[in-house]
Amino acid sequence: MTKLNRFRNNEKLIKYGDPEWQKAYEQGLLDIHFEHIGHGKLKDQHGHEFINMISCSYLGLDTDKRILQGAQDGIAKSSTLLMGSSRLRLQPKILYEAESSLADLYGATAITNVSCGVMSCGVLPLIASGHMTDTGPVTMVFDKHAHFSMNVAKPICADEAEVLTAPHNDLNYLEDICKQHDRVAYVCDGIYSMGDKLPIKDLLTLQEKYGLFLYIDDSHGLSVYGEKGEGYARSMLEEVNSKTMIVGSLWKGLGARGSVLMLGAKDKLEIIKRHGGGSAWSQYLTTADCGAILASAEIHRTSELHELQRKLQKNIQLLDELIPNEQNGSDFPIRVLRFGEPDKAIERSYKLYQKGYYASAVFFPVVERGKAGIRIMMRANLTEEQIREFASLVKEMSYE
Amino acid sequence: MTKLNRFRNNEKLIKYGDPEWQKAYEQGLLDIHFEHIGHGKLKDQHGHEFINMISCSYLGLDTDKRILQGAQDGIAKSSTLLMGSSRLRLQPKILYEAESSLADLYGATAITNVSCGVMSCGVLPLIASGHMTDTGPVTMVFDKHAHFSMNVAKPICADEAEVLTAPHNDLNYLEDICKQHDRVAYVCDGIYSMGDKLPIKDLLTLQEKYGLFLYIDDSHGLSVYGEKGEGYARSMLEEVNSKTMIVGSLWKGLGARGSVLMLGAKDKLEIIKRHGGGSAWSQYLTTADCGAILASAEIHRTSELHELQRKLQKNIQLLDELIPNEQNGSDFPIRVLRFGEPDKAIERSYKLYQKGYYASAVFFPVVERGKAGIRIMMRANLTEEQIREFASLVKEMSYE
Repeated sequence: MTKLNRFRNNEKLIKYGDPEWQKAYEQGLLDIHFEHIGHGKLKDQHGHEFINMISCSYLGLDTDKRILQGAQDGIAKSSTLLMGSSRLRLQPKILYEAESSLADLYGATAITNVSCGVMSCGVLPLIASGHMTDTGPVTMVFDKHAHFSMNVAKPICADEAEVLTAPHNDLNYLEDICKQHDRVAYVCDGIYSMGDKLPIKDLLTLQEKYGLFLYIDDSHGLSVYGEKGEGYARSMLEEVNSKTMIVGSLWKGLGARGSVLMLGAKDKLEIIKRHGGGSAWSQYLTTADCGAILASAEIHRTSELHELQRKLQKNIQLLDELIPNEQNGSDFPIRVLRFGEPDKAIERSYKLYQKGYYASAVFFPVVERGKAGIRIMMRANLTEEQIREFASLVKEMSYE
Repeated sequence: MTKLNRFRNNEKLIKYGDPEWQKAYEQGLLDIHFEHIGHGKLKDQHGHEFINMISCSYLGLDTDKRILQGAQDGIAKSSTLLMGSSRLRLQPKILYEAESSLADLYGATAITNVSCGVMSCGVLPLIASGHMTDTGPVTMVFDKHAHFSMNVAKPICADEAEVLTAPHNDLNYLEDICKQHDRVAYVCDGIYSMGDKLPIKDLLTLQEKYGLFLYIDDSHGLSVYGEKGEGYARSMLEEVNSKTMIVGSLWKGLGARGSVLMLGAKDKLEIIKRHGGGSAWSQYLTTADCGAILASAEIHRTSELHELQRKLQKNIQLLDELIPNEQNGSDFPIRVLRFGEPDKAIERSYKLYQKGYYASAVFFPVVERGKAGIRIMMRANLTEEQIREFASLVKEMSYE
């Protein structure tokens, strides 16, 4: 029998990770049902009002009335939400329009899907089997901190090619692999979910030197960075070349829904549609999703985007002034305040929630064991008053 | 190095499958962008009008105005499309309402996700590792014809337990496996996408005898069968017991979007939410999706559902009278007319499209090689006139 647990181990994951989830659950920190009561304020099922400090809607577009109207118009104009056939054969005009708009915005061929996980589970195996490079199998190197939505595809890729895990951001390790193997692809985040960036320039040097293929999930970077909100990775590239793919969530920055893949190899689009997993046989974006994308993309084409990006940066700077932290000075909106043990993190999160701010307790497997803390996200539509009040509540607590 | 291609082989798949897709593409049978122009009629990007004969919206609910209004109301009421946090922590009230409504409709604990693929990639590995049964690893037996959306998870499951593939509907093979292994789960469709049914009663006998766990994708059965549209599999069960899970698409029958998992083991719900893949870290249903589910579920609670089910059966019977076929007499809405070679199927599909009816050419890997044909779906909102015209066009062609 083949060796088990090469890439995952539910037994360990649940044994070590679940007790903390259970504690958070028992403290009432999970499974909160909210209503949006205006101005970014939420109310839970017990009537408790709070500010969401873990929203990845960094520009605050998730409650933007124009985007909501766009979603409603998408339904009305198309007179269906989702028609029951594969998009490979029949797709609503508005899906074509939404993808064209994204392609224009990002200056690259673009295809959408319902989530980054579905996109990555479909596309990564095609990279592994060499069908994105017209070669034989490609050695797949996943960064150790690559997001779950890509890691889930490791065993799938491993049925098509060799799969390795690289220490986080370790380009020496990666270069050694490039020297030892003819064809290598690197699977990584543009912005990691605990807040550090991809060394993209050094990776481009490796690409030039060894033909390294890059698959980057830039979900936390879209909208936050770039003249048109094209994201951290895309804004560092002159063009998306045929050896680079960027996947990103349309949910976080854009306030819409779904995922987008930017690719340089336009001639590979049909292969992805036909053989890229869910693209061919599963549900695609609804007319509401497409309408929201179209409306959000319009906002991204105006100077309003830059105003929102500036507001976000101002809020990030304010938070850093008020709460010194290990990520101080970064332009990235995520901050993790470490408490070491999960119990402490859960207790702090509970206290903050009681005082009207939801900040997540994070622990294994989201972060390494012994590095638990609370994670918060800044966004453009938090007020100075809210950030100051939150900071003063945090300052009453000890953190590392 | 570990053996490759135990469960998938892109090289073979694309080598044998892609040339036919390419031919279909060149004939203009793929990538059609449609507008719905009313009464189920679509118009493509060249102005050509046609009837969609491959819609899985079996009850015709994908254009139902009440469901579209429900989707729009869901957005307006929630004043967001999707809020940027994990649903594990914060979820909109309307998601809770939609899941409660489905749980009530199906008489089982229910959780939703964006697609059946995401649900299966999350839940199947938890079955494999024994976390749905509080046991050690479980031998996973996939039916050879199980849908792509489950097969994609085979290598993932194989990193947690042994994975086997059973000949289609071969319960002798399955019983032998049950005799040889302490714990077995069977992964299968309720209704297979080429139109045959799961032998559910015999499977329940195996469950009683050997404790067999059943994971059934009943996407083509939901709404079409059952007093409340609970589907083929659910309607054959008195209750969903703790060793049975049914996943289904909310897209096909219900005219909404997303997937639902019905489960008997209510105490496993939190484990699924926390460790079931995308449920914890990915996008969930939008407020539009939830609004559509709520509106569709209301229709499923009335006698209108039974009228639609009857209309569908009448249309299926009419088609069978007009076009004798190998599935004649089945109450299932899919029919495959075999032409043997893919070229013939593509040619027939092209001719039908020219005359105003889109019917898919199907070939490897959708069906076995040498068994190409055209696949059509009946639905409640096709008129007798349309079915008669379509049948007379088909009768002008030779098929097996």
